[in-house]
Order: sequence, then structure tokens, then C-alpha cells
Amino acid sequence: MQNIVERLLSGDRRALARMVTLIENESPQARRFLVELHQHAGHAHIVGVTGAPGAGKSTLVTRLVREMRRREHKVGVIAVDPTSPFSGGAILGDRIRMMELAGDPNIFIRSMASRGSLGGLSSTTRDVVRAMDAAGYDPIIIETVGTGQAEVEVMRTAQSVLVVVAPGMGDDIQAIKAGILEIADIFVVSKADKPGADQAVAELSMLLSLDPNRRKGQWRIPILKTSSLKEQGIPQLVDAIEQHRQFLSESGQLEQRAQRQVRSELQMLILHAAINALKAEVSDEEWDALVLDITKRERDPYTVAQAITARIGLLSQSLNREA
Amino acid sequence: MQNIVERLLSGDRRALARMVTLIENESPQARRFLVELHQHAGHAHIVGVTGAPGAGKSTLVTRLVREMRRREHKVGVIAVDPTSPFSGGAILGDRIRMMELAGDPNIFIRSMASRGSLGGLSSTTRDVVRAMDAAGYDPIIIETVGTGQAEVEVMRTAQSVLVVVAPGMGDDIQAIKAGILEIADIFVVSKADKPGADQAVAELSMLLSLDPNRRKGQWRIPILKTSSLKEQGIPQLVDAIEQHRQFLSESGQLEQRAQRQVRSELQMLILHAAINALKAEVSDEEWDALVLDITKRERDPYTVAQAITARIGLLSQSLNREA
Repeated sequence: MQNIVERLLSGDRRALARMVTLIENESPQARRFLVELHQHAGHAHIVGVTGAPGAGKSTLVTRLVREMRRREHKVGVIAVDPTSPFSGGAILGDRIRMMELAGDPNIFIRSMASRGSLGGLSSTTRDVVRAMDAAGYDPIIIETVGTGQAEVEVMRTAQSVLVVVAPGMGDDIQAIKAGILEIADIFVVSKADKPGADQAVAELSMLLSLDPNRRKGQWRIPILKTSSLKEQGIPQLVDAIEQHRQFLSESGQLEQRAQRQVRSELQMLILHAAINALKAEVSDEEWDALVLDITKRERDPYTVAQAITARIGLLSQSLNREA
Repeated sequence: MQNIVERLLSGDRRALARMVTLIENESPQARRFLVELHQHAGHAHIVGVTGAPGAGKSTLVTRLVREMRRREHKVGVIAVDPTSPFSGGAILGDRIRMMELAGDPNIFIRSMASRGSLGGLSSTTRDVVRAMDAAGYDPIIIETVGTGQAEVEVMRTAQSVLVVVAPGMGDDIQAIKAGILEIADIFVVSKADKPGADQAVAELSMLLSLDPNRRKGQWRIPILKTSSLKEQGIPQLVDAIEQHRQFLSESGQLEQRAQRQVRSELQMLILHAAINALKAEVSDEEWDALVLDITKRERDPYTVAQAITARIGLLSQSLNREA
């Protein structure tokens, strides 16, 4: 059994595939293996790609992977975007384009369900990244749809976040403003062969200029145009990703981001332990009965929560906090 | 001190205002008062109003409140929308319109910060609703911007959710699809005096017809047009809200929703206790040192989380789950 870790570390794709499955199934074994994998990870650059459905993320990812392969990188892809061909969505043409990647032994693609429990998606993604990283994949691309807190959480596990906007989706920029602006490192205007690309660049440029906090230290967020159709702009985009990686490393921000991610991961692991303790201590039947009592106003949620908290072992601390 | 609960229950606005402040400050007193208030709450109808910035939510809420006052209801408003004039955003005209409400003793308006910790916004909102409810406000309107998981969580505490769309914001409908469609009970096409209102109705109608799950039992989601400018459609909207309330009550869904909300509240209270226990047990200095060790790969996050879990009392259960 231990064997799987060694095989994974030596680059065995089947061992990696098996590990990812164990992680997705939340197997207790996975946890033990990950303890060992952790010390071998930390080398890969994690690139997040997000944007609205229809922004052209998946085709862009395909092109990015191809360019990275040209540069002789061993590339990992994790798709948590339900509209991505990697995840089973999208149209036949996308699937065909993406199949050309699947035969390459230096590309490892895995799709993941985008629904999960509280923080479940981001912790599973983080663990899968850890396994791919330990297996020598670098960079690792994570593709998500840019909506929902869960997806934004996932993007926080990336080191360079690409936000993809297609021309003529002007109102998307409003959505970016509301949701994912603060995590963007590089803007990509995709489908630059279509009319409106320059306008999209102008709008994004305006958006950036309006927000003085956008400078992220000394990093000037670039706005790059790409055309997957005309195969333009892709090498420049990979250059920009590499420049961002270098910037993070030289400015000390790579270290800061790594620490922020560890903080978040630790918190999530502890919250999951609390949820597990709750499930172990309170049966479904008892839980239902308590919920009914509270709904009928025969009990109140605060006192019930306090009692459960005591039973799962948290008593003294939470009482102290109340005092 | 007890006094504040009695005064609040007798309808004293100052007692309510003080209670809301205690809740927002997460005062331990608030928790004790809420235990008592819980049995006096459960009467109010909670109406959520959400939509993109610029959809006209705030003006609509002002009009709704006025119409509800005409029907002699005592109305509570909670604004967690940073663009709302109730929360301090928006333009002078909105503020003036909204000031006419502020003088009425049967209207209680409170704005809340939209940023908070994990689940913090929805639990604070729930507690404030509980206090307003116990103080006799019914209905209680909660206004949020329809982006982000935190805001969607808040909308889940409502019994009737209005999703507001303005004409010419076609791409918003895409966003609705991605995010808040599943929680909508009534669609409102605001600014119906503007061109494109009928098209917006048609698009929403198409969206509903595409999704057979949208029926929500036997409730047929209405799409209503309102014009705050021409003061049209508001009584019809209040009628629809009252019809939805009646539907929920008669179909048994009111009870089901209440139970679902209690479940979610209990979970959140228990997770908060875990976070408090963590803060009490692990100092900031120790936490920082652990994070650094993990970042340097001298320790791994799983083993560290396990050790902390044991220290805050969760040991046996989480070990059992690992076995």
C-alpha cells in the first residue's frame, strides 16, 4: 500500500490517478498518504483560470497546455468547471480539441465535481494539487467558473489567477467587479478575433485604473488579448504567467501566499473534524428531533448548540467564551 | 438588564435598536437575550429582495414598505446590500425617498456590513430577524446584492425571495441562472417604464420553462413588472408576496423551510464554537509558528490539524473517523 506513494513520486501516472480517486472519495488512506506527499510538494506553480460560462476558458486552457508542453513542462489540469469539456460539459468540437492532449504522458487531466460540502471543494482541490505537485507536474492549471464562493475559494489556492473575459460580455465586467476582481493577477480578453475585443480591454483597463488597490505590490496586472481561433497571444500569455511567477518569488509574495493558504487549510481541516465529531455523536434521528423541537419553539437553537458542543468535547472552551 | 427583553417585546424601538447592536457586536449578552426571544419569534414573514447592482432593488424596497404600511403592517427592513441607500450607498435621490420612511414608528430599518467571517453574515442576519420578529415586525424585508455565497446564504433565511432584474441587463439573467435561480420565488422586472421590459419578461419566462424543477411544488413562479417611477405594479407585487406566504403555509412548505433553516443554524453555531475553542486554545504566536513550519514542509497540515483538534477536545471522535 505504501508503495503507491513511492510509485507516485517516481512519476507513475496510474499511482497518481489512484491517489486522486482516494482523495475524492475522502478515504482515510488518502490522508495518511498526503502526510507523506506534503514534504515532496511545493514546487509546482498553480495557475487558476476563471471567467463566466462562454468566456472561452476551456479552449484557452487547451492552448495554454499545448504551449507549456512546447516549453517542455509537465502539465497538470484540474477542471472544476461544469461547462468545461474536461469536466464533461461543452460541445463536441471542444472535446476533440482536448482529446489531442489526452494521449500525452506528460499531461495529467482530472475533472472534479463542483458541488461539495462547506469548503469541501477547495480542500479536495488542494489535496489533488498536492498529489500532482509531488508527482512532478508543474505548472498545474485549475479551471473554474467564476461564480460562487466555493469557486472563488478554489481560486485562492492558485498562485497566478487568470480572469478570462470574452468581447461583448460587458456586463460580465460588472460581475468581475463584484466577485473576483480582488483575486485577478492577469486579465485575458479571449476571442480577440471578434469585434469588441479592444473595447473589452478598454473597460478592464478602466476598471483597474479606478481601483488603486489593484496594484498588488508592484505587480501591474496585464490585460492580454488571445485568439484561440487564430492561435494568437498564447505564447505571450504563458510569458506573462512566468513573469508573474518570477515576480511572486522575488517579491516574497509567493511565501506570503503560501502561508495564507496554509492558514486557510488548517482552519478547514479543524472545521471538518468538528463536523465529523458532530456526525459521530448525534444520530440523524436525534438531530431531526432537536430540529423539530426548535422549530416548535420548545427549545432554542443556542442552548441546543451549546449542549451538542459540550458533547463533542468543546465544552470548556466555548463556555469560557460565553462567560 | 433583563428589562431590555421585556421592553423589546412590548415594542420599544430603542430596546430593539440596542439589541441589534448587541447582536452585531457578538456580545455574550445578546446570546442570552436571544434564547428568550426565540420563543416569541416565528410570526413574521421574511421577504428577501436580491438582484444585481443597478437593478432598482432599493427603490423597490421603499415602495414595498410604503404599500405594506398602507396595509397597516409593521415593517422591518434589513439592508445587507452595500449599494443600498439603507446601507449608505446610492445617490441622494434614493436617500431622500428613503428618509420619508425613517420617520414612521412602525418601520424599523437597519443596515448591516456585508463582509464577515464564515457564515457570520447569515447568522447575524438571522439573529436580527429574530429580534425584529419578537418585537412584532411583520413582514421583515432583507435586501442583498445577488452575488457571493454569503448573500445567497442570507437569502436562504427568507421565506419569499424576490429576484429583481432591470430591462436591458440581459446578461444578468445568465448570472441568475448560475447563482440564485434555485432560490427565487417571485421574479420582478423593475423599471418597467423603460424599453426592454417585455423582453426581460420573455427571457425570464423562457428560463423558467427550461427548468422543470422550477415549479417548487405547486407554486408557479410569477414574473411581475413594476415601475417605481410610475408607481405601477407595487400592490400586485405585495399581493403576490402574500399569496406566496399563504401557499407556503397551506402546502406545509413553511414548516419544511423552517426546519431547513434550523438545521443550518445549528450547524453554524457548532462551527462557531469550534472556531472559538481554537482561538482560545492556540495563541496567534503559536498559530503563526505552526503555519511557518508547514510552509517550510517541516510539518504537514494534517498532523498539525489532528493535534489541535485533540487539544480543543475533538480527539476521540476525529480519531474514530480516521480509523
